Amino acid sequence: MPAFTDNSAGQETKPSAVVLLSGGLDSTTVLAMAVAEEYDCHTLAFDYGQRHRNELDASAKISTAMGAASHRVFPIDIGSFGGSALTADIDVPKGRDESKMTDIPVTYVPARNLVFLSIAMALAETLDATDLFIGVNAVDYSGYPDCRPAFIESFTKTANLATKLGVDGKGIVIHTPLMEMTKAEIITQGVALGVEYSMTHSCYDPINGKVGGACGVCDSCVLRKRGFEQAGIDDPTVYAS
Amino acid sequence: MPAFTDNSAGQETKPSAVVLLSGGLDSTTVLAMAVAEEYDCHTLAFDYGQRHRNELDASAKISTAMGAASHRVFPIDIGSFGGSALTADIDVPKGRDESKMTDIPVTYVPARNLVFLSIAMALAETLDATDLFIGVNAVDYSGYPDCRPAFIESFTKTANLATKLGVDGKGIVIHTPLMEMTKAEIITQGVALGVEYSMTHSCYDPINGKVGGACGVCDSCVLRKRGFEQAGIDDPTVYAS
Repeated sequence: MPAFTDNSAGQETKPSAVVLLSGGLDSTTVLAMAVAEEYDCHTLAFDYGQRHRNELDASAKISTAMGAASHRVFPIDIGSFGGSALTADIDVPKGRDESKMTDIPVTYVPARNLVFLSIAMALAETLDATDLFIGVNAVDYSGYPDCRPAFIESFTKTANLATKLGVDGKGIVIHTPLMEMTKAEIITQGVALGVEYSMTHSCYDPINGKVGGACGVCDSCVLRKRGFEQAGIDDPTVYAS
Repeated sequence: MPAFTDNSAGQETKPSAVVLLSGGLDSTTVLAMAVAEEYDCHTLAFDYGQRHRNELDASAKISTAMGAASHRVFPIDIGSFGGSALTADIDVPKGRDESKMTDIPVTYVPARNLVFLSIAMALAETLDATDLFIGVNAVDYSGYPDCRPAFIESFTKTANLATKLGVDGKGIVIHTPLMEMTKAEIITQGVALGVEYSMTHSCYDPINGKVGGACGVCDSCVLRKRGFEQAGIDDPTVYAS
């Protein structure tokens, strides 16, 4: 897939936003929200050595389908440092243990959202974009320190101190529209905005490495399944179990 | 050059630190300080599309010569976003205009230190290192927003909110020993610690792309020249002009 796609020709001028788009259910819903708010969306995906790299195919297709102005796949080898089941040779846990949700899971990638948001800031600066969207969620991911409101608030201050955007007085606004939503609420809102969830990929440990090749038992699959059930909406995903 | 070098075999156990080592005069002095403080130093250089990529050869040699435990060259293509004379097709200015030193120079790379420190945090987490050294300086680089104490202080808070290191209560300490030092003071201290400045590279726009191939007129050369003069120490650098 191309590392950079520019679809902006002929588009009218709207305020630009950088949207972090992994290709999963959450970030796809965030993109739909940013498009609905009439931003010119520049989507950014990261190739960080994740074992579910097929989400990158999903993100490129979703970006085009949803009319983003550009799409970038940024290679960043934080996986080479090790330390996470998503990138290293550590088994992805099967079956979600709700009693342990305040612990940091083994699928946590060291400093991932700190690194991703920092790179998104670098892109925002070069695009002169003052808005950035990220699909972090404190409801289902309470064990990930970098998905909490306190982190986002502190990052915003730091980013505005670190950059031309901040020094020039414009400053960045980081939008986290999913922060306090349940998975069912996210899906319901996405469907209302016309999101085709069959295009999205959630599984941490995909079968055959394909979009839609979902194991059905990792944390991410369990949350997705339950979200559709609770929303009373048909889940287009084919799970292996 | 290899992307990762491990020199730790047979070393005694000391507290680990991540040291950002560009291969320039400042970061090399910082490494000497961290070594003198008896840290087990893991040096980290970034290949970010800089036109003075030869500093990477310098950093690898310096790391080994100064006894670091490991050295990594981390590729990160923030240069692909454009926006800086250090990475894009914008001329590097010749002759330092002190009257404009509070403006942001064209050699500023969007969000560079934010991105570099974030990646250094990811490495620190996987090494379980609670100390990080960076050679930022607010005296000569007042125009760079990401070289100021307020940024470093805010980044530390953010990084501790974002990571396992912070949540587990240990927390990261970011050392900026050069923050308030003049170039002459930095050089004097480095010489006292045995730094071989002939190994370091400072020029933004190197002649023939070699270590020591210094133009003599870019901002970085001007500061280096003057530093040695003011310190009363012979400058081992051969300048083209």
